Amino acid sequence: MKRISLLLSCLFITFGYAQQDVLPSWEEGENKTSLLNFIYDAQDEASEGYIAPADRIAVFDNDGTLWAEKPTYVQVFYIFAQVKALAPQHPEWKEQQPFKAVLENDQATISKFGEKDLIKLMATTQTGMTEDEFEASVAEWLKTAKNPATGMLFTDMTYKPMNELLAAMRAAGFKTYIVSGGGLSFMRPWVESAYGIPREQVIGSRIEVVYEKGGVLRREPKINLIDDKAGKPVGIYQVIGKRPVFAFGNSDGDLDMLEYTTTGEGARMGFLLHHTDAKREWAYDRDSSVGKLDKGLDDYQAMGWKLVDMKNDWVVIYGDLD
Amino acid sequence: MKRISLLLSCLFITFGYAQQDVLPSWEEGENKTSLLNFIYDAQDEASEGYIAPADRIAVFDNDGTLWAEKPTYVQVFYIFAQVKALAPQHPEWKEQQPFKAVLENDQATISKFGEKDLIKLMATTQTGMTEDEFEASVAEWLKTAKNPATGMLFTDMTYKPMNELLAAMRAAGFKTYIVSGGGLSFMRPWVESAYGIPREQVIGSRIEVVYEKGGVLRREPKINLIDDKAGKPVGIYQVIGKRPVFAFGNSDGDLDMLEYTTTGEGARMGFLLHHTDAKREWAYDRDSSVGKLDKGLDDYQAMGWKLVDMKNDWVVIYGDLD
Repeated sequence: MKRISLLLSCLFITFGYAQQDVLPSWEEGENKTSLLNFIYDAQDEASEGYIAPADRIAVFDNDGTLWAEKPTYVQVFYIFAQVKALAPQHPEWKEQQPFKAVLENDQATISKFGEKDLIKLMATTQTGMTEDEFEASVAEWLKTAKNPATGMLFTDMTYKPMNELLAAMRAAGFKTYIVSGGGLSFMRPWVESAYGIPREQVIGSRIEVVYEKGGVLRREPKINLIDDKAGKPVGIYQVIGKRPVFAFGNSDGDLDMLEYTTTGEGARMGFLLHHTDAKREWAYDRDSSVGKLDKGLDDYQAMGWKLVDMKNDWVVIYGDLD
Repeated sequence: MKRISLLLSCLFITFGYAQQDVLPSWEEGENKTSLLNFIYDAQDEASEGYIAPADRIAVFDNDGTLWAEKPTYVQVFYIFAQVKALAPQHPEWKEQQPFKAVLENDQATISKFGEKDLIKLMATTQTGMTEDEFEASVAEWLKTAKNPATGMLFTDMTYKPMNELLAAMRAAGFKTYIVSGGGLSFMRPWVESAYGIPREQVIGSRIEVVYEKGGVLRREPKINLIDDKAGKPVGIYQVIGKRPVFAFGNSDGDLDMLEYTTTGEGARMGFLLHHTDAKREWAYDRDSSVGKLDKGLDDYQAMGWKLVDMKNDWVVIYGDLD
């Protein structure tokens, strides 16, 4: 019986594939073939690439992997908007950095902001309120917030080829997770509608929250986890507790996640998205302050990872699933 | 069409219920009826108790709620076993507390151990190795480790009525999570076979782990989260990001989790298990050093929570699902 049902299932997969391309926004080529083979083999008990259903854990970076991160991270635009909204209650900000630069749109100073400046802005604008209030504010802002370079809603700048990949992997029994250096609470309000990923499958940088009697979680100005670089496998340990079998990132901040994913036994794959499309999106890598991909370009081949060339591998860039 | 399918679905539920009792180890009575009604209503779109599938999040304490915690927590027995196993490499422990008391089975001293002693023992026996090594050690120990009071394998002392409840809730589309003060990495190796709960649905107290090049997570002697009392809603924030609709605990350490769960809108329930069965299990509450239930007994009615009386509500105590 098992053989027969396997045969039927293979026929079904083959037939289904012939009938419908699950990755229509990917150009035919080595990367698309690798992805499709990985997904189909994972379900085929007779294949060396078979993966037990409980182990089908796939992790994806967010900024620059699932949606655009230029001219800078969307969360930075949100923080700046909050500074401007709160400014009337803080007249002293007119003379204080880093607030002054934000209020004056002083790009020269802003471009030199370091981690300390961003943390100060975050602590001021993203803590003190309840978790529910914060998430409601993010959701409200995203309804109308637009990327200044494209004029598009930020939420319309998700990558269609990646949304197809997420959907195809879920259809094959994979649990798809986001593992991002971005803020956990900044992502949770919108990732389900953007990517079909539920809130409980998001791992991100976190601040401390404290529980207050009466059922409230309040946000504190203290960092709990930086979910970037070596922090990504740590976040995966805390939330998933399984070594993923598939990882997709786009910057050097993702390399530890890819290494952790691809150093276990059995079928595994790591992908990096190379932003090569100056016309339809942006072209950047080694010298970019946002989404820097330098070591990854040197090492990906030796690590056995695949490099996706946005310009040549993607038929379209933006969009939800049809 | 919707009405017809709803009708069919109601008939099916009614018929299914009449045909098969999904909680056979629960005595007929108010608590069993409440549980069954909650589960069935959650699936019935016409009911006030309907809960959207994505919101069907149920959280369960572990020690004393899903398995026995007397004469003390299973993890404490594990720590003591590790101290004894490591003693030959540490001759100095013969004269050093808290190790000396453990090696000599000095119950008088052990019974006075505070948090500091247990943390010292934990740091010595549960850190330094890789995460994989630690989990393998727990799994190996649990194969033969027995409760000194009953002579039963610890893993045979899971509560059958609770396993039935977990299964019934999952069949109704609930995601069942463990939210325990116990160690995350101590629970992950065995909860799936014991309760059908996958590793990624376990929240527990955590130490720090660090990622090492080459794909390894190493355990550090530093606490990252105490997932008890007000730490339970914090753990739920970090891992789930949704307010649960159902919570089941047994001690004052669970009250914040129950409060967080039952203070949202819509259908919600909180349960406390009262250990009242000195014959078949243990009877303890206000004065117990392990699983103390004091404030919970005072407050549960005012909070609208239900109290399960182990002696009168449970047909049997231990066992897996048939």
